Amino acid sequence: MADNRPIGVFDSGIGGLTVLREIINRIPGESTVYFGDNGRTPYGTKSHDTIVKYSLQDMKFLESKDVKMIVIACSTASAHSFKTLAKYSKVPVVEMVYPSSKSAIDATRNGKIGIIATGATVSGGTYVTAINELADGKNIEVCQQACPMFVPLAEEGWWDNEIAHLTAEKYLESLKDFGVDTVVLGCTHFPLLANTIGDIMGPDVKLINSGVSASNVINKLLDEKNMRNESGEVTREFYTSDDVTKFEAIAAPFLGEGLPKGTKKVSVDGFSVEDML
Amino acid sequence: MADNRPIGVFDSGIGGLTVLREIINRIPGESTVYFGDNGRTPYGTKSHDTIVKYSLQDMKFLESKDVKMIVIACSTASAHSFKTLAKYSKVPVVEMVYPSSKSAIDATRNGKIGIIATGATVSGGTYVTAINELADGKNIEVCQQACPMFVPLAEEGWWDNEIAHLTAEKYLESLKDFGVDTVVLGCTHFPLLANTIGDIMGPDVKLINSGVSASNVINKLLDEKNMRNESGEVTREFYTSDDVTKFEAIAAPFLGEGLPKGTKKVSVDGFSVEDML
Repeated sequence: MADNRPIGVFDSGIGGLTVLREIINRIPGESTVYFGDNGRTPYGTKSHDTIVKYSLQDMKFLESKDVKMIVIACSTASAHSFKTLAKYSKVPVVEMVYPSSKSAIDATRNGKIGIIATGATVSGGTYVTAINELADGKNIEVCQQACPMFVPLAEEGWWDNEIAHLTAEKYLESLKDFGVDTVVLGCTHFPLLANTIGDIMGPDVKLINSGVSASNVINKLLDEKNMRNESGEVTREFYTSDDVTKFEAIAAPFLGEGLPKGTKKVSVDGFSVEDML
Repeated sequence: MADNRPIGVFDSGIGGLTVLREIINRIPGESTVYFGDNGRTPYGTKSHDTIVKYSLQDMKFLESKDVKMIVIACSTASAHSFKTLAKYSKVPVVEMVYPSSKSAIDATRNGKIGIIATGATVSGGTYVTAINELADGKNIEVCQQACPMFVPLAEEGWWDNEIAHLTAEKYLESLKDFGVDTVVLGCTHFPLLANTIGDIMGPDVKLINSGVSASNVINKLLDEKNMRNESGEVTREFYTSDDVTKFEAIAAPFLGEGLPKGTKKVSVDGFSVEDML
């Protein structure tokens, strides 16, 4: 049994490329279709209903590309939309919150886990629910902190300048006071700021990258469901709901290599300017 | 002759409330309908085509509320969409770029004007075009600087802390080197950071608030076209494309008073979650 169709990966924009990077590095034999909803980015400042609506549209778009699996490579979309997408998707759905929560539970020695994420993710409380469900009797305490400025800092390329350090000091103070020994980078933008976050938290604090945790889950799923690509051919497709040139320009540091090239633009709400006029 | 219909005001989200505040303060006898496209905010990181498409939808929504005038209370939308909206709107359209450019030309003594704005506004070059068109023989030099981090700083409420100051120092260095004596706050979020921007630029540099400049244009237009509200009744309506409670919570500091209350949620792309399922 094999399934040579690509894995579909979506995000509100470019953050999910840090997840795609881990998938490509760890599961290089699988084809991928990436969709970034740059036309409506970010999701982390928006409300539950809006995030669910957008995620459903993103899923439908990836389904139209005949993917064998959907990866919600956006922690905000994962926190708000996973249940709905899992209910309506025709293919398996992998998200960010449970895999990274499990990694954090495995990693912590003192039982104190910090979650840093967007405002929408924190207010949804999904990480707390996930950690409680997965703790399996282990005594875990969670400290959550919304870090909304980390997203624009990552996009501006200010990953380790003085402003990034001061912002991280301000946001991470509560986690340090709480005494966490493990921090989930609960937004797919945050791996870009890992050095700064690590500097502030200190060398004894373990940082969990959701893309790594999710890649392990995807790998297991491919085996369990006998869905590996056995064609020997691997393709990489990129779609964005905003400008293609702009996407390719800002994508590079997130993906960590020369890709993407030949990105295509799509409209996810079925609207074109011509319809208006 | 009178026209008792409201003035329609739209923005990508909450920044335009700094414009609405000036309209309410300076033209208190006019009713207003405000639409914030919080479901797709911000526009300042997006491409020309996307900004035009969204602005047309915003205009159509306001037209459905039977407004007598449309105010594009978002500098990014003004810079990219004014010509298209002016072409297709059934009512007069007031935007931000030309009024604030005119104010800057009138204010400058040394002929050196700084423009600070979103990335999309700066790359569109509309301020440079507007100032050249309006200079009327006056010798004007323009220095533009994109300040993308000012938008999330304004929304995070970090208006005058150390991080805001460091960010402003970094962005405004080129304007200081250029020797500008006048700076256009070319994004409707930026009036919230006016104290910090003023501290960095120094007391001799004049800051231009687009909402003030646009209110003067609106006032003139109401007289010229005999469209003042003479009913004696004034209404304030607020609509958002994202969550109402959230809008009302984040709107207060931008609007500078207790309003809005009783905001209504609308969908501007005609899509509902139910359609998907």
